[in-house]
Amino acid sequence: MSVVSVQTPGGAYPIHVAAGRLAHLAESIPADVTRIALVSNPTVMGLYGAQVLEALKQTGKAVIEVSIPDGEAYKDWNTLNSIFDRLLGERLDRKALIVALGGGVVGDIAGFAAACFMRGIRFVQVPTTLLAQVDSSVGGKTAVNHPLGKNMIGAFYQPIAVEIDINVLQSLPDREIAAGLAEVIKYGLIVDEGFFQWCEQNVDALVKRDPAALAYAVQRSCEVKAEVVSADERESGLRALLNLGHTFGHAIEAGLGYGKWLHGEAVGCGMIMAAELSVACCGFPAEKVQRVRELVKNIGCPIVPPSWPAERWIELMGIDKKAEGGQLRFVLMSDIGKSHVQAVAPETVATVLAGFQ
Amino acid sequence: MSVVSVQTPGGAYPIHVAAGRLAHLAESIPADVTRIALVSNPTVMGLYGAQVLEALKQTGKAVIEVSIPDGEAYKDWNTLNSIFDRLLGERLDRKALIVALGGGVVGDIAGFAAACFMRGIRFVQVPTTLLAQVDSSVGGKTAVNHPLGKNMIGAFYQPIAVEIDINVLQSLPDREIAAGLAEVIKYGLIVDEGFFQWCEQNVDALVKRDPAALAYAVQRSCEVKAEVVSADERESGLRALLNLGHTFGHAIEAGLGYGKWLHGEAVGCGMIMAAELSVACCGFPAEKVQRVRELVKNIGCPIVPPSWPAERWIELMGIDKKAEGGQLRFVLMSDIGKSHVQAVAPETVATVLAGFQ
Repeated sequence: MSVVSVQTPGGAYPIHVAAGRLAHLAESIPADVTRIALVSNPTVMGLYGAQVLEALKQTGKAVIEVSIPDGEAYKDWNTLNSIFDRLLGERLDRKALIVALGGGVVGDIAGFAAACFMRGIRFVQVPTTLLAQVDSSVGGKTAVNHPLGKNMIGAFYQPIAVEIDINVLQSLPDREIAAGLAEVIKYGLIVDEGFFQWCEQNVDALVKRDPAALAYAVQRSCEVKAEVVSADERESGLRALLNLGHTFGHAIEAGLGYGKWLHGEAVGCGMIMAAELSVACCGFPAEKVQRVRELVKNIGCPIVPPSWPAERWIELMGIDKKAEGGQLRFVLMSDIGKSHVQAVAPETVATVLAGFQ
Repeated sequence: MSVVSVQTPGGAYPIHVAAGRLAHLAESIPADVTRIALVSNPTVMGLYGAQVLEALKQTGKAVIEVSIPDGEAYKDWNTLNSIFDRLLGERLDRKALIVALGGGVVGDIAGFAAACFMRGIRFVQVPTTLLAQVDSSVGGKTAVNHPLGKNMIGAFYQPIAVEIDINVLQSLPDREIAAGLAEVIKYGLIVDEGFFQWCEQNVDALVKRDPAALAYAVQRSCEVKAEVVSADERESGLRALLNLGHTFGHAIEAGLGYGKWLHGEAVGCGMIMAAELSVACCGFPAEKVQRVRELVKNIGCPIVPPSWPAERWIELMGIDKKAEGGQLRFVLMSDIGKSHVQAVAPETVATVLAGFQ
């Protein structure tokens, strides 16, 4: 097992990465917890529910199962409220703990529920998708969607532990592995050229789900994310780098309708666009765009963005949270492994977008 | 003007207390704020809206008025969502700021909206009731109610400033002055015997709304609250003392239906009950209960609790957030100005309750 430590102003917590980690969940439940609310969806409960309930039984604490519908469409206000109804109906108190078992939707909404229930109770993230393991479960971003934008209502709220079982990745559809690998690549692109090269060299093993390759990719991704989040919990500076590809990616998701492309797929394609914009704006070597494109393609993500007019793109990007005071800001790269945030004139963005038509 | 400083892990912020402070609100709006959302209700806007809008005009920033219905009954999930709809509909960004103009309901719900909107934007508290000035606006507790309990969904989230104008107290109904004074007395009871005596000596001036007396009472209350909150933001220890009278008080509010007694009225009566319980549990001098009762009466709060059987009281107190693991915990006093948290056996509580029948 490897342990990655996340340091935040609110305290430190561990990320445990191991094959078979689900069986050891009880280790992360503090002794003074009164009851456990296991928040998950029917799909994940069908696959891992029995195993997790068995593991939690070792705590000797009562476990309440809270089922929410499966899918991004349900990461909303109503589902969140249904969790509160349940927790209060069961009379859980301030020393109850939430276990979030599932992908990003479960983690985001259960984490936000933990942040707000009685002004904050403890929770443990147990991510069951690759995307959630390398991205959303680490760093304390929790949220629900609003009809006018994704993740618009939420909180920065840290779990007390993140428990990652590599074995669960074997049950995922290929598209979800590809989408998760896009975020893995991202860590190399923003701060670690060596890791990007490792991904290039091991892309076949990753796509074939070789356990050792996946374990290293997840661990290294969590390390990078933990370093960034530890330095900057609330996204005022460094943390913004984690949004490489996300401004374009969110526009793709919003423009096509959420769920058409997976979040990671949109980010994968968005990173190619960010690389092209980086050539125009900050001297990213033009020949390296092809390496980015190639790796995104090899992990199985789409590499051709929707063919919208520039105005449509810019409109879609305007509602993005990273837009401040009307200006468009992007995470750009001066080289692979070297990134920064930069304001870009809309005309420059339009020129680069035209190259994709 | 007096300035009280609140120190929290997330940073420090000032409480400004002055007659006519509303005219100076622009001083607390940082230069990098993009737009201001003024959250209030029709009653308060009718009284102070023009004055506040005029003051905010000095910032040169656009102000969006967000009106929510007046009353505790609307401190709920739906009203909160209506604020998000409006903020997103107006396309406010992460550098927008919320000004909460009103009593505890407006402050709690607008503060919680600020805590969750795009995972947290800045907000300024402008409390317009005595209760909000001395209690709810200071310390960062934000929340909405749930059908199964008050303030069950919320966050600890600090404003960047609290702006208190003593002049607004002149427009309040007598009952709201009385309810606010109950919380003022509370600060004396928990940590400051001298202030309790000052309240006894100046109760007539306070009830007659003498501006100098009110200004001192508000300032001293904010000082005590700021000290307590600075030492303990998240209510793990010291902060719990602020709940003197609240376990009984919440039971009264819940049992009679919220709104029948004002929160401060219930707390006022609850402090008398806590004093009696303190005689039984921790040596509070029996003759001093009369001083507590007398002062609560003189500020104009009810001193006779509802005549419920002990089982009803204990049931009502069981859902309270301060109940942990099924045990009943109370803030008790060993003397005026000396308080602590103590677990009490239900039988002892029942005996003391019987004395009130």
